[in-house]
Amino acid sequence: MDDLWLIGIGTGSPAHVTLEGLQALRDAAVILVPQKGEGKDTLAALRYGIIEASGAQAEVRSFDYPVRDPALPYGQRVIKWHDEIARRWIAAIQSAPPGPVALLVWGDPALYDSTLRIAERIVPRPRLRVVPGITAIQALTAAHAIPLNTLNGPVKITTGRQLRDHGWPEGEETVVVMLDAECSFQGLDPEGLQIWWGAYLGSEAQALEAGSLAEVGGRIVERRAKLRARHGWIMDTYLLRRL
Amino acid sequence: MDDLWLIGIGTGSPAHVTLEGLQALRDAAVILVPQKGEGKDTLAALRYGIIEASGAQAEVRSFDYPVRDPALPYGQRVIKWHDEIARRWIAAIQSAPPGPVALLVWGDPALYDSTLRIAERIVPRPRLRVVPGITAIQALTAAHAIPLNTLNGPVKITTGRQLRDHGWPEGEETVVVMLDAECSFQGLDPEGLQIWWGAYLGSEAQALEAGSLAEVGGRIVERRAKLRARHGWIMDTYLLRRL
Ligand SMILES: C[S@@+](CC[C@H](N)C(=O)[O-])C[C@H]1O[C@@H](n2cnc3c(N)ncnc32)[C@H](O)[C@@H]1O
Ligand SMILES: C[S@@+](CC[C@H](N)C(=O)[O-])C[C@H]1O[C@@H](n2cnc3c(N)ncnc32)[C@H](O)[C@@H]1O
Repeated sequence: MDDLWLIGIGTGSPAHVTLEGLQALRDAAVILVPQKGEGKDTLAALRYGIIEASGAQAEVRSFDYPVRDPALPYGQRVIKWHDEIARRWIAAIQSAPPGPVALLVWGDPALYDSTLRIAERIVPRPRLRVVPGITAIQALTAAHAIPLNTLNGPVKITTGRQLRDHGWPEGEETVVVMLDAECSFQGLDPEGLQIWWGAYLGSEAQALEAGSLAEVGGRIVERRAKLRARHGWIMDTYLLRRL
Repeated sequence: MDDLWLIGIGTGSPAHVTLEGLQALRDAAVILVPQKGEGKDTLAALRYGIIEASGAQAEVRSFDYPVRDPALPYGQRVIKWHDEIARRWIAAIQSAPPGPVALLVWGDPALYDSTLRIAERIVPRPRLRVVPGITAIQALTAAHAIPLNTLNGPVKITTGRQLRDHGWPEGEETVVVMLDAECSFQGLDPEGLQIWWGAYLGSEAQALEAGSLAEVGGRIVERRAKLRARHGWIMDTYLLRRL
């Protein structure tokens, strides 16, 4: 694997793909498609749809995501898991045609994604190319037609776990929360907070809620549970603003 | 103006445009192109290049950005300026063909951009559609092939002014700085800080620097000044990480 291309494909809509991403898919010799976790069928179908529509000539190889070993402490567990994924990439491209190997990455490869870290484990190191993609954050603000920041104001991007463990980040005006399986905004004092929430952003199932956290927080919790039950999986992101 | 579409076009490469953006350009009746400030010719040429390559049939109208009134206090100055821009949009589309009006927005319309705020000033309120675009942040991390966040760690996005006025944001690991005309990292204690810097990201003039802030900070200041003198303008963004 001399050349490894990580191609951000956006977050739910095949139309999120950029012209650079499209061209990279066409230029790749092999395309590696991960089959993983939540929404396995839906998300894999989206990936194959993008590849097909791109007119890619590459050989498409898929690989299953390994499961993490719950017996290991967190740090070690992640490292072993990344090692195993790197091994599966190598295994999946055995006797594939020579040339650039492309990997489709959900959203943007830089944001809460392990692909770059896994790529670092490959020996000898391939030349890496990253093609940026639309993130869930951009899909969220676009769907609500809102600015991410207040006028020249800072923005904090964080996770559900951080919000649960540390509460509202001191002094912040705008907080974007990702990787939150528990509606962790429930642990906040809702006074003065506005929320813009979105699930399945970019896709036909896109669901949106917005309003003061005190008023819509409960509705989001209920709706999220129902949607999750109906689809079998959910991905959601939200922006909180203190005004 | 019944329908106003804000189309994120990415940050320097015409290949940053998404398929959704491309289709929106093709579906628009009128395309409004701002002529503004720094890099006026280069950036306007990029915008016209994107429109031409998209196969858009729309009527293209351009308008000049007004200058801000330095006599007014900051808040008022910005509001008056936004009002004036909204007036120029309206003036620019006088007797244009009916149908959706599209505006090309640098990067993503949600990130440090005033277009959404200006759009709120139009009476009666048009239906707004926002098409997300690749931001300078994504162009930066892609060019350096680095993750934005540490493993599940939070990220702070901020401005040069904030960094100058408040120093290193308390407790942060990853800080992205935009809108910084003064290399404001110079005011920080460089100890333990890594920097990934990029200017003209996405374009042929793209310039990158990375390393420990202590080692490369001075080089960035020098290089930035030279590039700015050569091109007549510069846009740069950087990521700082405390390890
Ligand atoms: C492992 S991270 C991947 C993020 C991705 N790299 C990006 O750029 O958006 C997964 C998290 O992203 C958010 N996310 C991704 N896709 C989403 C979507 N279509 N709708 C809502 N949230 C989404 C959710 O917060 C989810 O927990
Ligand atoms: C008014 S903001 C617009 C940001 C834009 N909406 C985005 O999504 O990236 C302008 C700032 O964005 C950053 N920027 C925009 N384009 C850039 C580029 N091509 N290279 C480096 N920085 C860029 C710089 O920090 C600049 O000061």
